[in-house]
Amino acid sequence: MLELSGGRFRAVYRIAAPGEEEAAAVAAEIAIEQTIEYPADLVSREDIRGQIFGRVESIARGGDDFFDATISYADETAGGDLPQLLNVLYGNSSLKPGIRLERLDLSEGVLSRFRGPRFGRAGLRALLGVPGRPLLATALKPMGLSPQELACLAYQLALGGIDLVKDDHGLADQPFCRFEDRVHLAAEAVARANRETGLGTIYAPNVTAPVGELARRARFACEAGAGALLISPGLAGLDAMRALADDDRIALPLLFHPALLGSFVTCPEDGISPFALFGQIARLAGADASIFPHYGGRFSFSAEHCLSIARGTEEAMGGLVPIFPVPAGGMTLSRVPELVRFYGRDVVLLIGGALHRGRDLVETCRRFRGLVEAG
Amino acid sequence: MLELSGGRFRAVYRIAAPGEEEAAAVAAEIAIEQTIEYPADLVSREDIRGQIFGRVESIARGGDDFFDATISYADETAGGDLPQLLNVLYGNSSLKPGIRLERLDLSEGVLSRFRGPRFGRAGLRALLGVPGRPLLATALKPMGLSPQELACLAYQLALGGIDLVKDDHGLADQPFCRFEDRVHLAAEAVARANRETGLGTIYAPNVTAPVGELARRARFACEAGAGALLISPGLAGLDAMRALADDDRIALPLLFHPALLGSFVTCPEDGISPFALFGQIARLAGADASIFPHYGGRFSFSAEHCLSIARGTEEAMGGLVPIFPVPAGGMTLSRVPELVRFYGRDVVLLIGGALHRGRDLVETCRRFRGLVEAG
Repeated sequence: MLELSGGRFRAVYRIAAPGEEEAAAVAAEIAIEQTIEYPADLVSREDIRGQIFGRVESIARGGDDFFDATISYADETAGGDLPQLLNVLYGNSSLKPGIRLERLDLSEGVLSRFRGPRFGRAGLRALLGVPGRPLLATALKPMGLSPQELACLAYQLALGGIDLVKDDHGLADQPFCRFEDRVHLAAEAVARANRETGLGTIYAPNVTAPVGELARRARFACEAGAGALLISPGLAGLDAMRALADDDRIALPLLFHPALLGSFVTCPEDGISPFALFGQIARLAGADASIFPHYGGRFSFSAEHCLSIARGTEEAMGGLVPIFPVPAGGMTLSRVPELVRFYGRDVVLLIGGALHRGRDLVETCRRFRGLVEAG
Repeated sequence: MLELSGGRFRAVYRIAAPGEEEAAAVAAEIAIEQTIEYPADLVSREDIRGQIFGRVESIARGGDDFFDATISYADETAGGDLPQLLNVLYGNSSLKPGIRLERLDLSEGVLSRFRGPRFGRAGLRALLGVPGRPLLATALKPMGLSPQELACLAYQLALGGIDLVKDDHGLADQPFCRFEDRVHLAAEAVARANRETGLGTIYAPNVTAPVGELARRARFACEAGAGALLISPGLAGLDAMRALADDDRIALPLLFHPALLGSFVTCPEDGISPFALFGQIARLAGADASIFPHYGGRFSFSAEHCLSIARGTEEAMGGLVPIFPVPAGGMTLSRVPELVRFYGRDVVLLIGGALHRGRDLVETCRRFRGLVEAG
């Protein structure tokens, strides 16, 4: 006889359906698929039916051709860890078209199992000594440069006053640019620039790596003087990011890169909403800043998506602190005022390639900083 | 000055476009996005342009509204590991609608970095002592049963002659069903049944777990007498599966569960083809058997998808051995002859809930086995 705590967490699913009856049938399927995954009529035990089965709490029309269904699950089904929580939220239902995980509404019981972001907005601001304005970020690239060449770029970017200089997420541990060489030289270059400017630029190397290498690289980066870390949880695993965030030996801010996660958000009827994935789930996984494509750049997120992600980075989630949205993907200096109007001051503005269009990289960075300080 | 090996691997992308000109423009974008992710016109160095840039090798019309573009990348860009290989193949392009990763065509240089499946079809057959016929599998469920109750089911399923008895992928380490208790009791129950029947049923517990727990659970399962392991790489990370497959201290067959990976395949214009994801990438990640929803069950894969996955489990990939396709998701005994006609003998037939519809579970399993042996 099961005796669970009674605590339940909720999820909202957007169900593509012509009418409420069809939507209700799909919602009932989700409640079973995400829990017992077994013919409901064969389960006679009332404790399992009442406690383990997902429970459809409400269904409401959300638009012409979709409904929003709220389903609750017993806290205990999620097993207290991120992989199993994601499994209950969306594991098998991800395989069915027309069901999108729209938002998480986690209980205290579940949230208490997650430490979440170690720094968040306030922590990252404190680390950088930048209390109010938007933060400036850029990436070391292109792939193909040597560690020395990238370090030279890092020096100039820091000299120009960029707050966060991250590796491009495509810089891994390639034979032409070894992780350790790059991190060592770039961290040193940024420190040298900081001594000259009196500023506190942070270098964030990419530690996305095979299992068993990731923690080692993160510790190496830490010792080499990195001030934050970049990780692509779509490549390394969301729980690998969570483990990194929880690791007290590392204790650096984490930047979440969306590589490979796009397929969850490109189809409006399937997958996970940008709000839930790049906002809520990024925070659960311990991100301090969440990078995503801003609309009107090289990618095709809508303005609505971008705003919803920003909301997801700050909406109340128990004790999990708000994190920075990092709109990126083809941004230019001319869009800075618009970006600041759109996101407000709690944003990291990430401009990559466009910084290199000017005649003088340091000067262009200073102009970027001037624009942000003026805003 | 870069001096790379010259080895290049290829990927085929399905690009949604009305005409060849538009498709060619998208292909050119992919070649840049997946490598330098930087304005191409700002790169003057011929070594980077010639070696690091992705190279569009060919474009061909694939249907009324899409084209197949083959793009090659320098072996070295993939850094020799799975996360970075996936990043080069599809990291940022996953964020752009209308681009689907259709197939991998990996070079010897890249393939040599992957051990792949440890057992594959031949190894799993040898382990089970079943040389020719399709294999039988089922899952322990529903969630909510105690370890004792699940062990009792495992005993009956093994007594009935099922080859592979796996945990349902929703059985993790919940307070009402602890991993260690379940694995210990279920492995013991299956061993007891094997002593009685003289058969060699294998129990495959679910080891999907947080980073840092996964290897420990796998070793525990190994010592408790599990004969294979179930893992959901969508939850634990694809590279976590690869690491498990490579771990000589464990050395058990791995069953790949598709939880959370559905969003890569539900939208026909985006994501990764079922062939590449559940066939090729599953093998790269070390799966010995790849579970996916068979058409006409609870899910909505097409017959064409299922056939393509089966092809992906066996098509030549350097030294990576062929693995079993495992069609599942609402299968019933009445569909066994059809499934065998569809997949041939090299298939694992996974029937879950439907086995419990009969009056006598052991008898129903024997009927399942009889049907397969008769085919």
